[in-house]
Amino acid sequence: MPKGRLYGIGVGPGDPELLTLKALRLLQSCPVVVYQSAEDKPSVARGIVAGYLPGNQIEFPYHLPRAIDAVAAQPIYDKIVTPIAEHLAAGRDVVVLCEGDPLFYGSFMYVFTRLSDEFETEVVPGISSPMGCASALGVPISYRNDIFSVLPAPLPVEVLEAQLLNADAVAIIKLRRHFAKVRDVLQKLGMSSRAQYIERGTMENQKIIPLHEVDPAQVPYFSMILVPSKSRL
Amino acid sequence: MPKGRLYGIGVGPGDPELLTLKALRLLQSCPVVVYQSAEDKPSVARGIVAGYLPGNQIEFPYHLPRAIDAVAAQPIYDKIVTPIAEHLAAGRDVVVLCEGDPLFYGSFMYVFTRLSDEFETEVVPGISSPMGCASALGVPISYRNDIFSVLPAPLPVEVLEAQLLNADAVAIIKLRRHFAKVRDVLQKLGMSSRAQYIERGTMENQKIIPLHEVDPAQVPYFSMILVPSKSRL
Repeated sequence: MPKGRLYGIGVGPGDPELLTLKALRLLQSCPVVVYQSAEDKPSVARGIVAGYLPGNQIEFPYHLPRAIDAVAAQPIYDKIVTPIAEHLAAGRDVVVLCEGDPLFYGSFMYVFTRLSDEFETEVVPGISSPMGCASALGVPISYRNDIFSVLPAPLPVEVLEAQLLNADAVAIIKLRRHFAKVRDVLQKLGMSSRAQYIERGTMENQKIIPLHEVDPAQVPYFSMILVPSKSRL
Repeated sequence: MPKGRLYGIGVGPGDPELLTLKALRLLQSCPVVVYQSAEDKPSVARGIVAGYLPGNQIEFPYHLPRAIDAVAAQPIYDKIVTPIAEHLAAGRDVVVLCEGDPLFYGSFMYVFTRLSDEFETEVVPGISSPMGCASALGVPISYRNDIFSVLPAPLPVEVLEAQLLNADAVAIIKLRRHFAKVRDVLQKLGMSSRAQYIERGTMENQKIIPLHEVDPAQVPYFSMILVPSKSRL
């Protein structure tokens, strides 16, 4: 019996209409659908595609403790992939949902690195949050020969400063409890007025808030600061 | 009479199935479709969506001289937007196609900056080439707190070197005649074995070529070097 194929599909930043045609086709044709969720919360990725599910699939949610570090999550991923591998070995195609893009800071990468040697694997790119948020804000990110960087907010202040000074446009991700630190850095560098804050970009409850009005205690995981290029060319 | 709405839609990196559901809906429902092409070549963006066009729309291709510089193109964009504005003023919705993502190094930005003050404008993000190429290569780009940068190849050698040393993962775009320079820099920095070259990623005639085998004289516009993160976490 031929083995099943593993598909990692990006479901985009939140708006269900930002799914690609290819992701939709695979989502609806694979017998097994896998997605991540915290123990105590519904899965964001499944929520995005809920309206497209035909209802006759095997669903397999895997749980990670809330706000778990990627290093601490590795032994959990070792276990998570076992039932996925069993479905594949039994000849069933498996689609793994991933918010945003699967290979760009995506949770799917931990499944990919464990199973893609053994099973035929295909990845379907998704709309990544910098592009989703730029569209939601209506702001061009980068022009022509601009340097664009993605900076995770947990980086040390010195690194953030140096990177902000050396790029033309920046997306700062994973803000959460690092928001105040990032806002201070932007202030110090004179970039506050250019920076734009958005949370849950393209989701139903999307909010765009002026940077100085954001409550640092209320910054969710799905938030971003975009510093668009100063260029107009 | 109400004015028409302006839509800039990303059509992704090449595979027609990487269009989003939202882009498809707008593409098929707007009476006017606008796209860029060189004077002597069919439009790449229209080629991507050709199979989805209902056939009853007003099509308006606009021409830019081949390989024109963005500065030199500005007076041409001043003229290009005139017929678009006329359609909008006449109450017709206009969809402008854009390869990749419209606000990320996208040609739509030049239309956007000229018309979005006067006309209601909505942008639909598209799959950008770094994500499209990573999926085509089957390579995770960036993990966790990695810094990811997009570097246009026309940048000076010193800038490319410094940026490559300061990022964890990089996508080098706009290679064309700058390919040999970029390959030399990667060689000097000991990054050649990690770097992956792909041309026309996700298109029908996609090619993945070992970096040292690429003929610098044959590097097309739609090409990229990805330097994925060394991290596995």
